[in-house]
Amino acid sequence: MIGRRSPRIERFLGQDLDRLEALSDGVFAFAMTLLAFEIRVPDPNSITSEERLWAAVVALAPRLVTYAMSFLTLGIFWNAQQAHLHHLRGSDRTFTWVQLTFLGVIVAIPFSTELLAEFITFRVALLVYWANIFIAGITLAWSLWHMRHAALLRDGRAEVVTLLRRRLVVAQMLYFLGATLCVFSTYWSIGFIVAVQLYYTTGIRLPVVSGTMIGRS
Amino acid sequence: MIGRRSPRIERFLGQDLDRLEALSDGVFAFAMTLLAFEIRVPDPNSITSEERLWAAVVALAPRLVTYAMSFLTLGIFWNAQQAHLHHLRGSDRTFTWVQLTFLGVIVAIPFSTELLAEFITFRVALLVYWANIFIAGITLAWSLWHMRHAALLRDGRAEVVTLLRRRLVVAQMLYFLGATLCVFSTYWSIGFIVAVQLYYTTGIRLPVVSGTMIGRS
Amino acid sequence: MIGRRSPRIERFLGQDLDRLEALSDGVFAFAMTLLAFEIRVPDPNSITSEERLWAAVVALAPRLVTYAMSFLTLGIFWNAQQAHLHHLRGSDRTFTWVQLTFLGVIVAIPFSTELLAEFITFRVALLVYWANIFIAGITLAWSLWHMRHAALLRDGRAEVVTLLRRRLVVAQMLYFLGATLCVFSTYWSIGFIVAVQLYYTTGIRLPVVSGTMIGRS
Amino acid sequence: MIGRRSPRIERFLGQDLDRLEALSDGVFAFAMTLLAFEIRVPDPNSITSEERLWAAVVALAPRLVTYAMSFLTLGIFWNAQQAHLHHLRGSDRTFTWVQLTFLGVIVAIPFSTELLAEFITFRVALLVYWANIFIAGITLAWSLWHMRHAALLRDGRAEVVTLLRRRLVVAQMLYFLGATLCVFSTYWSIGFIVAVQLYYTTGIRLPVVSGTMIGRS
Repeated sequence: MIGRRSPRIERFLGQDLDRLEALSDGVFAFAMTLLAFEIRVPDPNSITSEERLWAAVVALAPRLVTYAMSFLTLGIFWNAQQAHLHHLRGSDRTFTWVQLTFLGVIVAIPFSTELLAEFITFRVALLVYWANIFIAGITLAWSLWHMRHAALLRDGRAEVVTLLRRRLVVAQMLYFLGATLCVFSTYWSIGFIVAVQLYYTTGIRLPVVSGTMIGRS
Repeated sequence: MIGRRSPRIERFLGQDLDRLEALSDGVFAFAMTLLAFEIRVPDPNSITSEERLWAAVVALAPRLVTYAMSFLTLGIFWNAQQAHLHHLRGSDRTFTWVQLTFLGVIVAIPFSTELLAEFITFRVALLVYWANIFIAGITLAWSLWHMRHAALLRDGRAEVVTLLRRRLVVAQMLYFLGATLCVFSTYWSIGFIVAVQLYYTTGIRLPVVSGTMIGRS
Repeated sequence: MIGRRSPRIERFLGQDLDRLEALSDGVFAFAMTLLAFEIRVPDPNSITSEERLWAAVVALAPRLVTYAMSFLTLGIFWNAQQAHLHHLRGSDRTFTWVQLTFLGVIVAIPFSTELLAEFITFRVALLVYWANIFIAGITLAWSLWHMRHAALLRDGRAEVVTLLRRRLVVAQMLYFLGATLCVFSTYWSIGFIVAVQLYYTTGIRLPVVSGTMIGRS
Repeated sequence: MIGRRSPRIERFLGQDLDRLEALSDGVFAFAMTLLAFEIRVPDPNSITSEERLWAAVVALAPRLVTYAMSFLTLGIFWNAQQAHLHHLRGSDRTFTWVQLTFLGVIVAIPFSTELLAEFITFRVALLVYWANIFIAGITLAWSLWHMRHAALLRDGRAEVVTLLRRRLVVAQMLYFLGATLCVFSTYWSIGFIVAVQLYYTTGIRLPVVSGTMIGRS
């Protein structure tokens, strides 16, 4: 009987959506803070004048770009996951593990960012970065599929799955397009990806419709 | 009278289950993120071509295995602890300390993981890793014992202790079996443990019974 | 139709004020703890007597000053952001991104602090530190503007925007004044900024009016 | 009029007890995890056999003692702070800053621990560690004083201040006694402090009175 689980145990595992949210916020908060932590202060021994310090600070600029790009990436995924969880009436064990897998992919983003920052002209680094975003997208697609399949949505929120899935597919297509631009140059890829992200975060064409706000749940 | 505590103080300590949950989520979130933090980016000075960077990234693969294994371990323990706390009507001072001890063991898992990743063929590293899991299991058993003993469970949730205890005992027996496989090779142990973990996380034989979902408390 | 978003998706993004608060608390908590993490223990190999250890500990004192200054800075911004969010009835997508931008600036403060601690006599370091505070202030101003513009405030809380904006402007003017003092010496700047911060945190002239307390929402 | 604050702003600052709790849990979670993070894995290059790895792991034992001691310290302070906040009906600006000061002292504990672990036979290290605990105690005393002074307690909880203050004073006297034992040896101090902590955490003489449990607020 080793490993034979009673179906009843399922009723007691992975039920707590509030804790899944809290864990996720902790993971995202830490990953966001780690991004900045990787920006190292110049070595004091090699710097003897204001000019040299200024030059050293300016030399950190490429890191600021990858930092900003990764912060946008994490923010976009955090928003997406928030939208996933906000409209559920509960969780189940499978959904919890799908989300944990998602978080397991998210915590690799500071690593991918650091890799890209150190090897910004290397296609391998760019593709590792893109693969990280892509796998995160896969887990979100799985999450969307499961929340509909297992009837986890609150009443009247069915539309959210359709909208989030469309958004996910389009975004991933754009990221893929950006990644392929590394055939020319990794800078093209990075520029394109940042442009896509700014488009998603600023939502320029769509002024906020405050009347549709749902409010503090 | 130094150190003589009034029983009344007991009424004011360790009462706040919400904060215990929040602390736990923070600890798990941080431990999960630290796992990935230990995956270091290759040294830029030694890498001069795409091929070498690719080779360096591929060389990180063993770390990905230990990373995934530890992420699964943390996820399983987080789920277990969530199930422990989700069905309680409150906490007391002793329960709080049992749980803090549990967290104190959990935060050692990034260390054990790093040790195993650096010394993946060493039985000592594997046994330290197993000991970490085992001691975490002991604290969970203590937690289950105390929550029944001190009547902390919500009404109608008595069954959960029985189910979680059985699950805990079976899982720890399997981990122990996995650890003993290091007599042959640490790779056997790791493979077996990962297989057990995937079995627990995927729950292949048990499709989700969405009707039993309890929902957002 | 690539990238063409339906307005309807707006209803499902960035709604969850509770999660924004949780993410913010995680980011601030990590940033605060990272500040202390940068204070490194002296190298054991170079220290052979109690006297030398004492000297090494005393030599950490300048770091304690920058640490305290940055902790105050983070605390002041955390309080400000708390006041921003506490009086809202909900969030929207734009507000969420304004706040994420704010957090993205906040997580750079441990870096700026470390830079200032390593180069405490360098004006460049002081100006980078000030720029960090200034940009954080800009995002808060944007946040205040948006919360009024998008009608996110709870009823009867309109006054809070006026008061917080005035506070923000005055504080940023004082920080700017402090930064300009680096013409004389960075120590003057640091002293002035710490004095301003202590003024804001202690609120010496204004004893707490407990009757106006709003309480746990 | 620069810096002249309106009393009205006080009504909008530092009100949110929930966020203070969340920030605190994040800080404690991070500090607890950092303790373990300081336990470094042995250098792989110097270890060629199982015996040497075992020896290296055993050599980490003194760190385990300081780790356990600091985890107990953080746990005790977390419990104390939880008891402080759990019985309040709200917060005010001053109370928030007292608590932030407390957190600012708490985040130094990983540093003090690391210092003590590296210099375990040095009285200076022991006294720095004790000073850290002492200053944390001062901030808690201030917190207790303010919560009574500003009438922040919920009705019927006045007793908690008396009990927590007595507990705080006795504990700090015992820590002070432990610190003075370093006249003989830092090991005496450490042993005594750990004994005091275990006494406080296990509460041997006082079996849990489950009937007095207050429950999930």
